Amino acid sequence: MPVGTHATVKAMTSDELREVGTEIVLANTFHLMLRPGSEIIRDLGGLHGFMNWPGPILTDSGGFQVFSLAELRKVGDDGVTFQSPIDGTTHHLSPERAMEVQAHLGADITMVLDECIPHPSPHDAAQEAMERTLTWARRCRRAAASSHQAVFGIAQGGVFGDLRRESARRTAELDFAGYAVGGLSVGEPKARTLEMLDVSLGELPAAKPRYVMGVGTPHDIVRAIDAGADMFDCVLPTRNARNGLAFTAEGVVKIKHARHTCDPSPLSASCGCSTCRQYSRAYLRHLYMSNEILSSRLLTYHNLHYFHALVRAARQAIRENRWRGLETEGLPLPPFEAESADSLEAPDGPLV
Amino acid sequence: MPVGTHATVKAMTSDELREVGTEIVLANTFHLMLRPGSEIIRDLGGLHGFMNWPGPILTDSGGFQVFSLAELRKVGDDGVTFQSPIDGTTHHLSPERAMEVQAHLGADITMVLDECIPHPSPHDAAQEAMERTLTWARRCRRAAASSHQAVFGIAQGGVFGDLRRESARRTAELDFAGYAVGGLSVGEPKARTLEMLDVSLGELPAAKPRYVMGVGTPHDIVRAIDAGADMFDCVLPTRNARNGLAFTAEGVVKIKHARHTCDPSPLSASCGCSTCRQYSRAYLRHLYMSNEILSSRLLTYHNLHYFHALVRAARQAIRENRWRGLETEGLPLPPFEAESADSLEAPDGPLV
Repeated sequence: MPVGTHATVKAMTSDELREVGTEIVLANTFHLMLRPGSEIIRDLGGLHGFMNWPGPILTDSGGFQVFSLAELRKVGDDGVTFQSPIDGTTHHLSPERAMEVQAHLGADITMVLDECIPHPSPHDAAQEAMERTLTWARRCRRAAASSHQAVFGIAQGGVFGDLRRESARRTAELDFAGYAVGGLSVGEPKARTLEMLDVSLGELPAAKPRYVMGVGTPHDIVRAIDAGADMFDCVLPTRNARNGLAFTAEGVVKIKHARHTCDPSPLSASCGCSTCRQYSRAYLRHLYMSNEILSSRLLTYHNLHYFHALVRAARQAIRENRWRGLETEGLPLPPFEAESADSLEAPDGPLV
Repeated sequence: MPVGTHATVKAMTSDELREVGTEIVLANTFHLMLRPGSEIIRDLGGLHGFMNWPGPILTDSGGFQVFSLAELRKVGDDGVTFQSPIDGTTHHLSPERAMEVQAHLGADITMVLDECIPHPSPHDAAQEAMERTLTWARRCRRAAASSHQAVFGIAQGGVFGDLRRESARRTAELDFAGYAVGGLSVGEPKARTLEMLDVSLGELPAAKPRYVMGVGTPHDIVRAIDAGADMFDCVLPTRNARNGLAFTAEGVVKIKHARHTCDPSPLSASCGCSTCRQYSRAYLRHLYMSNEILSSRLLTYHNLHYFHALVRAARQAIRENRWRGLETEGLPLPPFEAESADSLEAPDGPLV
């Protein structure tokens, strides 16, 4: 599930999203409430009409970006007051307002407003944020009671097993249409991420969709699936594409590397996407070095194709009872693990 | 004929170019000889293979960019020495080298090296450049004698009728596969452009392709056709698209204008391109204001579609003996004339 921060999956048309196998897109409430404004999108037929995407859409609550991008942020029991990073205007996001904005956007799946804390945060801060998130979750539930939109709750709890367990259990008691695990992959060690994921998913009903927010690399996605997750979202396929990084079953291709200058081969010999069928590494490198828009387009298309192929292969393995986590046969996983988005951009990552 | 400065028509794939009706693309020798280097493109199957465009390709000689973009330029009878604006390296473009580079690129149509002078230039400077261009034309002709590539000569002559006439006549005597008129639309008054165009085309054989370089707006193209031109190239459709300007039969749409904020209508009600069929002005404005790549893509696609439709309509009118220049019925010309690329970017242009 690719991220479309501004009512678009960056560099892609909706036709291409369909073609590459996308089933659902995510749109960021924070960005859209500030520009162009959710009322405008409502009047233009909601996000489906606005961005010409008839398929399922999920909107986040805006909380994550308020806590990571907004300025002069002030959190209270009634929500968050913040300044727009675009024009400095003051906005308030309460649980009720978050659901109202998402109603304007007309997504099929909406998320409750949650308080996202930075890493590291001490136990008492994580506990306070967890309690506030639970209170907000109840208010969001009530505010959206008459809506046709599905509402997902979000389990938080920082990096503390007891809080993760309690948050997930009490969120599940509120009986949402699905559940997300939030606040992970924010800088904590990977072993801790997986531990928290296990604890959280263990308390969330397996019969409902379980969504891990902000994950991740190919290996991370397979680990999350192994832990029981059904849904993910991440900027990795699109942002890294714009930075010249392609994911392939053979490893990460850093297209600006001089070794690709004269290379007539595709990004990946095992990939059947339209980028790999039509364009060489040499050409893609040339486009990247020349700052051509087409570079972002072709690499984004390839990366989306790769992540969709990975998740499709995982789904098939599960259906055929062949699932063995990272050891599952037939998954197009690279031999070396890309640790994170950041390490992918480091010059010493594993390159092919 | 859109311009593809870096072995791509900016923001477009070759699939889209085909889809939108493109028959031939232009690639800039100057840019490609500096990056990635013409030898690399030769080794990768020429431009057709490199950029995945099996259709006809025209390359310019590099001269125009040398005279407009390069630094520390030094012109002599043997060609031009200049510094790369990318890395400061020194390069020399002689008539023979210009043809060699174009042979590497493997275009179907190549252009002779010509000396392009700034506007305004006095009569004696224009005459000197004309003589040099004629000498270079003969050398290019000789250098490409055994080539399978078609070579076009270029008539120059500044803004002086006598030089334009002489340049065209003497270039035609060299018997090229086709002829271009260069050095126009460089800042001279439009009436003068048309006058020079008439004089030049009058001396060039009507039975061979006649190509007006760097033209132009929709009205300019129709005027050039009326003067006898068969081919054109210009950055207008693509560059203006990236700057948020759309050409339509109803006039120029400046997409950032606040009037489009809530407008559910397409760029043009009379246009059937995929942008107009799928996306509203409100959405296109949102993409543009958010600096989204998709804005450049959708507007570029629309503008290419518009210019192709215009030229197709002109061709049909000529075939059906209905051609009456700007008065030809059925041409999708806007009611107001867009004076030039620059004036399109001014805030007081005619907007719809």
